Amino acid sequence: MSIVFSASLRCQLPVLLLIFQGAFIAIFILFFSFEEPFSYLNTSNVTATAGEDDLDIFPLFKDVHIMLFAGLGLMLSFLRLYGFGGIAINFLIANFSIQWAMVVQGFFYHFKHWMIHLRLNNILEAEFAAVTALISAGAVLGRTSPVQLILLSALEIPLFVVNDWLVNKYFHILDIGGTVAIHIFSCYFGLGMSQILYQPSLQRGHKKETTTSNSDLLSLLGTIFLWIFWPSFNSVLAKNREAQHRAIVNTFLALSSGTMTTFAMSSLVDKRGRISLAHLQNASLAGGVAVGISADLISPGGALSIGCIASMACTLGFQYLSPFLAKKIKLQDQCGIHNLHGVPGIIGTIGSIVVILLEPIDTYGSSLHPILGVLGNTETWTSKGQALQQAAALGVTIGVSLFGGYITGLLMRLPCFFHPFREDFFDDQLYFQVPEDIENKWISNEKLQEHLLVPLKQI
Amino acid sequence: MSIVFSASLRCQLPVLLLIFQGAFIAIFILFFSFEEPFSYLNTSNVTATAGEDDLDIFPLFKDVHIMLFAGLGLMLSFLRLYGFGGIAINFLIANFSIQWAMVVQGFFYHFKHWMIHLRLNNILEAEFAAVTALISAGAVLGRTSPVQLILLSALEIPLFVVNDWLVNKYFHILDIGGTVAIHIFSCYFGLGMSQILYQPSLQRGHKKETTTSNSDLLSLLGTIFLWIFWPSFNSVLAKNREAQHRAIVNTFLALSSGTMTTFAMSSLVDKRGRISLAHLQNASLAGGVAVGISADLISPGGALSIGCIASMACTLGFQYLSPFLAKKIKLQDQCGIHNLHGVPGIIGTIGSIVVILLEPIDTYGSSLHPILGVLGNTETWTSKGQALQQAAALGVTIGVSLFGGYITGLLMRLPCFFHPFREDFFDDQLYFQVPEDIENKWISNEKLQEHLLVPLKQI
Amino acid sequence: MSIVFSASLRCQLPVLLLIFQGAFIAIFILFFSFEEPFSYLNTSNVTATAGEDDLDIFPLFKDVHIMLFAGLGLMLSFLRLYGFGGIAINFLIANFSIQWAMVVQGFFYHFKHWMIHLRLNNILEAEFAAVTALISAGAVLGRTSPVQLILLSALEIPLFVVNDWLVNKYFHILDIGGTVAIHIFSCYFGLGMSQILYQPSLQRGHKKETTTSNSDLLSLLGTIFLWIFWPSFNSVLAKNREAQHRAIVNTFLALSSGTMTTFAMSSLVDKRGRISLAHLQNASLAGGVAVGISADLISPGGALSIGCIASMACTLGFQYLSPFLAKKIKLQDQCGIHNLHGVPGIIGTIGSIVVILLEPIDTYGSSLHPILGVLGNTETWTSKGQALQQAAALGVTIGVSLFGGYITGLLMRLPCFFHPFREDFFDDQLYFQVPEDIENKWISNEKLQEHLLVPLKQI
Repeated sequence: MSIVFSASLRCQLPVLLLIFQGAFIAIFILFFSFEEPFSYLNTSNVTATAGEDDLDIFPLFKDVHIMLFAGLGLMLSFLRLYGFGGIAINFLIANFSIQWAMVVQGFFYHFKHWMIHLRLNNILEAEFAAVTALISAGAVLGRTSPVQLILLSALEIPLFVVNDWLVNKYFHILDIGGTVAIHIFSCYFGLGMSQILYQPSLQRGHKKETTTSNSDLLSLLGTIFLWIFWPSFNSVLAKNREAQHRAIVNTFLALSSGTMTTFAMSSLVDKRGRISLAHLQNASLAGGVAVGISADLISPGGALSIGCIASMACTLGFQYLSPFLAKKIKLQDQCGIHNLHGVPGIIGTIGSIVVILLEPIDTYGSSLHPILGVLGNTETWTSKGQALQQAAALGVTIGVSLFGGYITGLLMRLPCFFHPFREDFFDDQLYFQVPEDIENKWISNEKLQEHLLVPLKQI
Repeated sequence: MSIVFSASLRCQLPVLLLIFQGAFIAIFILFFSFEEPFSYLNTSNVTATAGEDDLDIFPLFKDVHIMLFAGLGLMLSFLRLYGFGGIAINFLIANFSIQWAMVVQGFFYHFKHWMIHLRLNNILEAEFAAVTALISAGAVLGRTSPVQLILLSALEIPLFVVNDWLVNKYFHILDIGGTVAIHIFSCYFGLGMSQILYQPSLQRGHKKETTTSNSDLLSLLGTIFLWIFWPSFNSVLAKNREAQHRAIVNTFLALSSGTMTTFAMSSLVDKRGRISLAHLQNASLAGGVAVGISADLISPGGALSIGCIASMACTLGFQYLSPFLAKKIKLQDQCGIHNLHGVPGIIGTIGSIVVILLEPIDTYGSSLHPILGVLGNTETWTSKGQALQQAAALGVTIGVSLFGGYITGLLMRLPCFFHPFREDFFDDQLYFQVPEDIENKWISNEKLQEHLLVPLKQI
Repeated sequence: MSIVFSASLRCQLPVLLLIFQGAFIAIFILFFSFEEPFSYLNTSNVTATAGEDDLDIFPLFKDVHIMLFAGLGLMLSFLRLYGFGGIAINFLIANFSIQWAMVVQGFFYHFKHWMIHLRLNNILEAEFAAVTALISAGAVLGRTSPVQLILLSALEIPLFVVNDWLVNKYFHILDIGGTVAIHIFSCYFGLGMSQILYQPSLQRGHKKETTTSNSDLLSLLGTIFLWIFWPSFNSVLAKNREAQHRAIVNTFLALSSGTMTTFAMSSLVDKRGRISLAHLQNASLAGGVAVGISADLISPGGALSIGCIASMACTLGFQYLSPFLAKKIKLQDQCGIHNLHGVPGIIGTIGSIVVILLEPIDTYGSSLHPILGVLGNTETWTSKGQALQQAAALGVTIGVSLFGGYITGLLMRLPCFFHPFREDFFDDQLYFQVPEDIENKWISNEKLQEHLLVPLKQI
């Protein structure tokens, strides 16, 4: 690590953060306010409802918090030397992204009479946008600096808002859990960016890209936190209580069958039948990604099936597809977001199309039909039309996100933004004052070997 | 570890899991559905209530999730070399058990017109059943394979459902927190099984059955998660809001006094006054087990007393009873479930009998009597009768569970099910692809000693 | 560690705990009961409301639990050799303090007709009192015994109750999040005590007062748990739903801008631009402390500003103020509570005075004014009067707490209470049966150096 570069990090990161934070404060002071008292105090009926609606989402809001900050943070801390890089940089990017998304979404959706009325809902909305930046960053975990990730978030959030609007308001997609708008979008955005940031040297592997038993365990704990609260994530945007109830139950079922399947597949693909921690940390969540798009529409058996298929595909993706893509199209994907968000997302979308085409409308009459109940009664609605719209939304999202990812990757490569040297990839020491602990992870195997009498592997 | 055996693990675990998961999917597709729309949409009053009832338990449902997957998983990760075995195998068995319990309970309780109507409640119900399998597995932690534990769960869940029905519907036990139906049942089932799986070599201790400071700290964190959400566990089945309120407060009080007592007793039994982590990890929860059966019935002072007594007994159990039973009746109990679930469960049941006999009915008149308020007004109810039924339910449960445990243990010993060699007990390497970390736990003290100039103990 | 002293620990800790627990049980049996059934069953309207009110706080109650037991416990486990000392002793003192506070507050506030009616609310109230003891203990973390900390809590809780009453009922402070009554009080109480317990030898640093990468990561995880649930803490005492809504949103905003600012400032003050874990673990929470006093009153932009300023001050405090005070006034503050609770608390209080003076009453008329909406319409209320009362409450609290801290420190120094030798500071081995793990933290760098061929620092 050269002194020049660390000096530039010291300049860039604080300056960038303070400028952005200053700008956010200015924008909030100028344009954001709580609702004017008279708008909700004069008419007591409205008050009660409005107040209740917003506070009612508070528990789900906290669940999403646990997922973003504790769950995802821990899950990303799986690398031996990059634990702080996982949890702390996630903490930073999440906070930047949420504030930035509140600004962008505020002006895009809620700007009236030169004011933006802020309620708890806006933060939740912003957190869904922030998720996309955090997922995309997973593709380049440990080989990009926080400065580059701030840039990533600054560009991805506005594009997400536009694509989210397209998918929901233009294509009227049925997608309660954001499988297309969040998972597919962030995955292909991240992969596009990652391809531009291709590092030839990583093809032979990187000596620091390993885990420890402790980092793997904490990462699995992060996965389990995500797993526990995924039903909240997939159900928070439900249109009514019955849809929410179905979304919760179906998400749980998909996660549960996915987890069992992950254990089975992971054991099956290892020649000694052992389970891979990387598989567990990721594929046990694939069911939640895949079922998101149809969680309020399908039957319990369908949810179990989708979870099973998604986790199977995810495990096989880690085992076979990722190495294949790395070799063939030079796609480097540190966290395997393609296996966890891309493949299960596509499977889920295809599943939703099948469900929409097969769901027997005539059984109950249109007003009791689960899909139409969610949509509201539209006379012109047809299964086939909806199926086409689901497919179109998927295609458009992949196109938009790949394009955005490529542009973002090009900008992130600009030499003016601090980026780490290859030997400092996956290493906290560049960004954090790490403790000098004897049992720590910063003693390389090579260094230690010099002090041992027998080869380390024999120990 | 011989190649033959690992080959058999590779065959057995995935095949077993995929067959079971396939069967669950088939059964769910054939027999499980959400409630028909017309049953809740036609009558708007019913809708509201039904929907609310189910979503109202969602927060408690999440609490139980945290307990099962994060709390119990971490708590079981206390062994030096068996961290993944604690948290990940718990994750697997929990998921298998919940799906399996949904099937068994579905057919046992909810099967009408060839359909089972699924609601969130069913999953919660299934999670209570799953808990029993997870507790019982604690008795043989680290010396049974996941294949054997799947068998354990497959057999224990149906027996739990039958015993639970007996205890609640036949004996009309007052037991809001499942002290008898869950804790006593799972404890004696596990102990019965453990006795059959007796390993003479373990009597001298096992070199891998140790902890590290980090594994002990994570295990204590798991305990604390269980501790935090135990009031939810004990109050989720309350009949009305007042009973639920009392159950929450009393469970908290019992846990709190139990924790203080654990510190005191643990310090007292050590000759240098130091506190044992094993005591903390377990005995601080004993109050929650013991108070479960009477959490909605007793006074705050009673709750404090029960917690204090239960944790005292639990600490003394770890210190004196477990070594005694290990020597005398060859009872090996890796997690000490007898001290945490058995002894406090019996104490709690005796406590509930005392409370039922002493509760002064005449004070308020029968309609305001806490117990009768919970039961509904039954003319024929007598304190003495209820006390006998509590005792009978305890006795029957111990008998049924011990019997079931013996049978299960015999089946688990069949050579066709994969079981680990003694030298691979308490070792993740048999089941997981563990990272080769230098600071890791897989360097044995013995091996390391060879490379050091002074005895390790002197360092 | 001499045998004499450990013997005295063995005597003192269990005896003290058992005596207190016995006394609590006796007091609870004599004076505490749930509300008499007739008081809530006879009038059905009252029932519903009362019952709902209490169970409605249950989710917030659990959030505070997670903060106290998991969040704060983990956060305090940052020391290399004192992980159990962080999480387990916090667990003990929290439990003691809650029970003790229930007794003190019960007699102070709720004692009627020789009875104290217990509801969930009382426990929550007691937990707020307990927080003060836990924060104060942070100033002397690792250099006081549990016996001394029990004494600390025994003395601090009653003084907190009195000061809390003064601040709220006498000065009518507007302080929804307890910035003055909790944070300022506990900080200056702890600092006063710490000054009396001044250890000259610590001025040169202590070889055991270091962290490991793992302990730092777990501590950061604790911070993140506190961060996630801080909005619950600051909003639980809100007078109405709109105030609660504002408090939640504003607390989140202050935490978020504070976190971004912490990253910026921490990088800025390091000559290589690296971020300090100690800064992250603390300063990212400073916004929550500072915004507490005005969380229900200010605008979103104001919340962002306060969070930014508070975290900036907190980071600079750790970097410059703490070393300065340690040298000049011999103030030893192990956890930096002055930077996290004192300085941000004062900033927040000044901020609240500014807000109260500037808030334009005339805009909406007094009945719609946020502050008056919270207070209820008081004819005699003036901005200036309230501002003076805020300032007076701050001054009185600092005085009372410093005085209480000095007295408590003097009593804690009495030789009859067990206190550790200096060489045993920050070391679990004195209080816990620590595992003998090879990778453990109990191998000192010095010892290890003897077995290595090159200087450890060069590795």
